[in-house]
Parts: sequence; structure tokens; C-alpha cells
Amino acid sequence: MPRLPYLPADFRALTFHDVTPRFVSGEDTPRDYLERCLAEISAREPEVQAWAALNEAGARDAADASTARWRDGRPLSPIDGLPIGIKDLLETRDMPTQMGAEAYRGNFPKRDNAAVWALRLAGAVIVGKTVTAELGGTHPGPTTNPFDPAHTPGGSSSGSAAAVGARMVPAAIGTQVGGSIIRPASYCGNFALKPTQGAINRGERQATSMSTHGVHAGGIEDMWQVAIEVARRAGGDPGRAPLLGPDTPPMPHKPLTVAVMEGEGWAELDEAAQGAFERVLADLRDAGVTVLRRGDHAWLERFEHAISGVQRMAADITGWENQWALRNLIAQSPGGVSARTKAVVTAAEKMTPGEYEALIAQRHEVRRYHRALGPLIDALIAPASPGPAPKWRGDVAGEALAPRPTGSSVFNTPSSALGAPVVTVPLTAVHGLPMGVQVMGQPHADARVTAIARWMAQAIASVSL
Amino acid sequence: MPRLPYLPADFRALTFHDVTPRFVSGEDTPRDYLERCLAEISAREPEVQAWAALNEAGARDAADASTARWRDGRPLSPIDGLPIGIKDLLETRDMPTQMGAEAYRGNFPKRDNAAVWALRLAGAVIVGKTVTAELGGTHPGPTTNPFDPAHTPGGSSSGSAAAVGARMVPAAIGTQVGGSIIRPASYCGNFALKPTQGAINRGERQATSMSTHGVHAGGIEDMWQVAIEVARRAGGDPGRAPLLGPDTPPMPHKPLTVAVMEGEGWAELDEAAQGAFERVLADLRDAGVTVLRRGDHAWLERFEHAISGVQRMAADITGWENQWALRNLIAQSPGGVSARTKAVVTAAEKMTPGEYEALIAQRHEVRRYHRALGPLIDALIAPASPGPAPKWRGDVAGEALAPRPTGSSVFNTPSSALGAPVVTVPLTAVHGLPMGVQVMGQPHADARVTAIARWMAQAIASVSL
Repeated sequence: MPRLPYLPADFRALTFHDVTPRFVSGEDTPRDYLERCLAEISAREPEVQAWAALNEAGARDAADASTARWRDGRPLSPIDGLPIGIKDLLETRDMPTQMGAEAYRGNFPKRDNAAVWALRLAGAVIVGKTVTAELGGTHPGPTTNPFDPAHTPGGSSSGSAAAVGARMVPAAIGTQVGGSIIRPASYCGNFALKPTQGAINRGERQATSMSTHGVHAGGIEDMWQVAIEVARRAGGDPGRAPLLGPDTPPMPHKPLTVAVMEGEGWAELDEAAQGAFERVLADLRDAGVTVLRRGDHAWLERFEHAISGVQRMAADITGWENQWALRNLIAQSPGGVSARTKAVVTAAEKMTPGEYEALIAQRHEVRRYHRALGPLIDALIAPASPGPAPKWRGDVAGEALAPRPTGSSVFNTPSSALGAPVVTVPLTAVHGLPMGVQVMGQPHADARVTAIARWMAQAIASVSL
Repeated sequence: MPRLPYLPADFRALTFHDVTPRFVSGEDTPRDYLERCLAEISAREPEVQAWAALNEAGARDAADASTARWRDGRPLSPIDGLPIGIKDLLETRDMPTQMGAEAYRGNFPKRDNAAVWALRLAGAVIVGKTVTAELGGTHPGPTTNPFDPAHTPGGSSSGSAAAVGARMVPAAIGTQVGGSIIRPASYCGNFALKPTQGAINRGERQATSMSTHGVHAGGIEDMWQVAIEVARRAGGDPGRAPLLGPDTPPMPHKPLTVAVMEGEGWAELDEAAQGAFERVLADLRDAGVTVLRRGDHAWLERFEHAISGVQRMAADITGWENQWALRNLIAQSPGGVSARTKAVVTAAEKMTPGEYEALIAQRHEVRRYHRALGPLIDALIAPASPGPAPKWRGDVAGEALAPRPTGSSVFNTPSSALGAPVVTVPLTAVHGLPMGVQVMGQPHADARVTAIARWMAQAIASVSL
């Protein structure tokens, strides 16, 4: 079958929220929904390779239990029966947690991450573990882009993004510390939420000050519903406020004013990607939204100046924070960690606590400039990646390691560094592949950002260039 | 040999900083120092039971390497060669980490906690793992009070406090989330620092928003030196400022004004304990220090009012934060966790994220009332425990579980909840057993608190009642 170019207007993502009324009437069941997912996985997995582990028997048991609850009119939540993938960084009691690392091969701690525990309480069906780039870094796993296997799905939430893009599951859990949710979501045509720092309890994964759990989904309704069901049960990180917002997806909300965030990524945008994004901006203006550009207001220009070093800052902060866990892992399994990851540890070992503290102080400053935009605009918008997914054919023996095998996180590190919520909308296609547009807000404005993204998904015409 | 009552003026704690000049001259060596520690351990351990594991061979190798460095005039730090105990909650690559829990029997992850890694880099000699109450909670281990084995050493850093009190080692690492450093230090005649929240990197132990690593020591100089050497290498928790202060112990500093913190503990003070503490206050006044009591200033009274519910608040926050790890552990090993700890999980499961968030908001409020005292006083002082170590003979089969087998943390939870640094000074004896006086400051004033404590240790006569 010849591969057709991705067209956002034609692509029908897999959704769940719109099916549940038929669970009540008995026309459909969670078990049947799951079987359709498993059939899609069977069909696409040989090429897409989104899964590090599957638990089909466990998923069928969970789906049967959910079927009975819906039949009895007593679902545990609106996502009762929703088949979901879990990024293989999070512990699950019924499957190994191998983190894309040879050093963790066979690691099976038989524990549930807090978010996984919450999902089970809400009735969600844990289908399997999705492939992650090694340890959540940049060293890629086997997953391919569901819209063209010659291209990367992005990383590090490669399998979560690809499984949703391939219509294998309606939602999957990802994690982001640089651009690990929003970038692969952009490449794979997902909606995705990278929430406010701390808003979804990371359970055992508290080592870094800028990582979050988040949700990839085919539909923005499912995206929100999964996130809020987890937060309603597992809360936020220790000492942090959990995800704020309604119990059901926020209604579409048309913003008064948005501002374009250029950041360090603007120079990396290819011509077609920039053209597609400008078309979105024109449509926003046509719809009556004021769109500010960086020259339009002194505070915007100050903000752009503040974030101009954020790529390096974020990489160094995270490298420092991960060094003890990584050093222990390398000591235990010298051959079980990639050269890419080892290079990160080597760089961190050259830093001092004082240098780290200076970076944290710098991050405080950047956050102040972002807060200053709060009264001025409803949201920042930007491309979710500098273009569609780049090609990736694997490392070549004897050559230097490709620096960005899973693509560039340049448009994603600002929200990570700012601890700010962001939602990406699959609004454009460039060269026949998806590319997202992201909406970013002030910390704790996750619901507002979701509402604006939902409005954009409805009101703004998708663009293919 | 008849047991003599503990007299703070007569007790000679084991110190290290005053010995190192003899390492330079060759009159003494780190290896000889270690051998004296090991001899003391051999002599006292059958009764005190401070150690969960010992690595004598590894310690001897490390001490020999240190001996060579001092001989060459190139010690790695002022604590090069210092024999130290590590609370058995922290991972160590060369010893098991069993956390005082049957469920973790044989657990040997072969990783170093960030603080352990830093200690090794500074040349410290890791002697062994010290007994912790189960999982850092209240279910006691086998350790006895080094000054009377019929009494508890306190908990949860039972072994660290007892090993220092028994002169087995000059320092040990403890951890506190309620009163787990300062209370056992009080009962065992230690100096101890519970630093500002986040000031010493907890490595893999980031699950709770109020826990810290800290230092038990025979002398305040060693206490500070160990803490700063760790912070200089491992920094603070992710996103937090590391311990601030000089590279060597802060010089003694006489305060202008201190205020007594009564809190919920005042009503629990026994008569002799209160009498001893009042004698310390009288001495402070005689030395020219202004001592405020709660009625003396409206802000003090407001502060006392704010902390009046802190015991319950802190217990609920920590219970909530620990529930996922504990639930997983109980699921894995239903018989491997005590009834005391299971009861904590059961209570946490009744809470909602909203209730937790309300407690965090309450904690913010309490911290504001503490910050308001900053300009008014140099430090708060209080008894470090409501009395000396209570008797403890073990649970009795068929009877209800004793509620506080390791003593009461009522005087310690305020500093934990406030994220505030505190140092305890072994300044009094009550009924022949040690009882500390604690000095508490504003967050990040760890050096100031240490300097005031050091002045008190020199200028205020110890009291025995």
C-alpha cells in the first residue's frame, strides 16, 4: 500500500471519550475497544516498534472488569476502560521497567509508579510499556515515525507518541525534562500536555527539578481527562500543588491576546515550517485574536532575551541532577549505558555545586520575566518543533554520533525551564509529516492553556505545506 | 562496672578535627584512629547494637589510603580519614541497605547515595550502616541508649546517634522528617545539625518534602565540617540552594536576642527537664543575651499559635508523601512491614489530594509566621526533646503497640515543617541521661545557627538535674 502524506484535516486520531456513551448502551464495550487496539498494535507494531513490553492478558482482564462496571452503570471514572501506554521510565508492577537501557535489561521492580496506581484506580487499562530513548535522554530506541518509518518519532517519549499517532491506543503517558513529550507529540500528530512543574506526582522519579509526567492523546478531551484523573488520585509532587482545573475537559476558550515565542528555535525553523506557522498566526488574527510579535512590547523583548540561553542552562541543570543515578548505573554496568549518556555524566562531573546554584538562580530570573507577561497575554504560542520529524537511519559505526537523533528540543526547553504548562495541537503538516503548534501559559494555568488549545483545534484551519 | 550517671561536663565525646594535626606530624594516623574506633565498636556493640552492617576491611583500606595522603601532605579535605557511620536508609555501594525493614532484608543495590559519594571523595572512611527505625518511621530497631541500655536511643537515626554517643565514631549521617536526627541526638549527648530543607542533596531519597540528611557528631567542629564537605561536592536537592556557610566551622557567635519556642512540646516537658532548660535560659541572661518568652512580643505569640497544629500537619503530609513507596513495599512483602508502618499507610489512604494541598497551604502560612521573626531575634531556642530518653523494653505481645517507642518528636517537628536549620547542643543532663538544647534559625542560616550553638557550648555552663 503506498504511503500517503499526512494531512491533519484527513487524519482521524483514535479517541475514547466519544465512545463511552456506547459502553452505557451496550453497543460497544471496553473489551471490544481494547481488542481493536490490540489488532492495530498487531498490524503496525512490526514497523512502528512503539512497545517495550505488552501485557495483553492483564489488559484483557482489566477491560473485562471495566466492561462489567459500565454495564452496571458504575464506571470508576470517565476513563474507565481507556487502553493506555506507559512510558518505560515509570515503574509498573506487572511489567519490567527497562528504561531503554541495556543496564536495566530485565529490571522488574514489581512496583507501580504513583500515576500508574492512579490510572488503575480510575479503571484505565494498562496495555504496555512504551519505548523511551535511553533513560529519557537522547540515545534513541527502535521506534519509527508512524507516518514514515524513515523518520524519527522524536524522543524521549518515542513509543508513547508513536503508539498514539499509529492509533494503537487513544492515550499514553510520557515524561519531559527538555522536550521529551512535546517534540515527539509534534512529530507524531498527537495532542499532548506537559503540565506545570510538579502538577502530576512523579512517584519514584523525583530526581530532577524540571521533569514532569504528561499525557499524549489522539483527542484533547482524552488528554485532559487522563491528566485530571491521575492528579485527582495521586496529587502533585511532594510539596507541590496538583493539576488545577475542572473534572471534565475545559471548554474551548478564545484568547484575546497571544504572543509568539521565538526563542532559540526561530533560527532553526525551516522555510516550510515557518510558512505553516505564519498561516496559523494569520488565521488567529482573522479570528479576531491579537497576535503580538517580539518587537511589539518591551516585556516580550526582555523575555526573549532572558530565554536566549535556556538550552544550555537546562541541559546543564539536568545533567547535574542526574549524575548520581547515572554514575551508579555506569559503575554497576559499564557496558550497559550508551556513549551518548556517558558523555552527559562526564560533562556534569566538571561542574561544581556553585555553578549549579548559579544556574538555578538564572532560572529564577528567567521565570520572573515569564511571570511579567502574565497580565499582558493569554498565552504564548510557538511551533512545537523546528520542523517535522527529521530522518533517522541509526548510528553509523565508525562515524561520530549524530548529535540529535530524536530531533531538536529547542522549542521545548523554555516551557521545561519555566515550569510552565504547554499543550501541543496537531495543526500543521510540513512535507507530508505532522508538526504541532504549542500553547504555553503561566504555571498552574494548565486548564486555561488546554481551553485555548481546544479552541484553536476547532477554530483554526489546519495547514499543509 | 557500675554505670555512672551521664554528666555533660565530664563526658568526653570522640572528636576528629583536633587529632588531624598529629596525622601531619606522624604521631598518629587515620588507620590508628580507625582501629581505636573499631576497638570501641567491639567493646560496646554487643550492648548498644548501633550497626546494621560493618565493612571493616573496606574501612581499613580507606584509612590506609588516607594515612598515605596525610603523610604526603595532601589530604583530600579536613575530614580525610574521618570514620563515619551512614544511616541504613541511604544506599551504599559496598554494604546492604535494609532500612530496618524485614521487607528489605538482603537489599543490596550497590549504589552510593549522593552524600556517601561526596564523603568518599572527601576521604572519609565509611565504617558501616547504622540502625534506623523501620523505614525511618517509629518502629524501633535493636539499638539501646549508650548511657543506659534500658532506655531508647531515640529514632529514627537510632544507630547514628548511639554510635556517636558511645564514642564508636566521631560522626554519623542521620536523616530527619519529623524528629529523627535531633531527638536521638538529644538522647545520646550528640551535637547534630538538621540543615535547611534541601541544603544537602538527598540523592535517591527525594520522596518527601520535609526530609533532610544531617550530621551527628561528638564535636560541633566535626559536625559542620562533615556537612560542608558533603554540600561542597553533592550540592543541595534538585533546584535547591546547597548548605551556605564557611569552608571551616563557623566561629562562636554570641547572639543579641533569642526567643524560647514552646510549641506543642512545652506541656510535655517533665519538671526536671524544664528546670534544666530554665537554668540554661538564666545563664544566657547572665551572659547578657536578651531572652524573649512567648508573651513578650505579639509576633512570637502569633508564631506559637501558628505552630500549635504542626505535629498533626507534619505527620499527615509525610504519610501522604510516603504512601506510594510504602504501598508498593507492602504489596511486595505483606509480612515484611510492621503494623506500625501499615497503620500510617492506612491513614494516608483516607486522605485526598485536596486535603494534602490544604496542608501544604497551611505549611506555607506557618512558614510566613516564622519568617516574620527574622528581624526580631537571632534564633529560637527550645529543649531538643521533652526530657531524656524514655525507657523502652520492646513491644509486649498481646498488648496495644506503644505509641512512641523511640520517644516524642514534639519539639522537632516545628523545624522540620518550617524547613529551618537546627543544631542541638548536649548542654544538660536530666535523671543521669543527656538532653539537648536546640538552636533554630531562618532557612539558609545554618552557619549562623551553628555559630550560636558553638558559642553556647563554650559560654553556657552545662546543667545536671
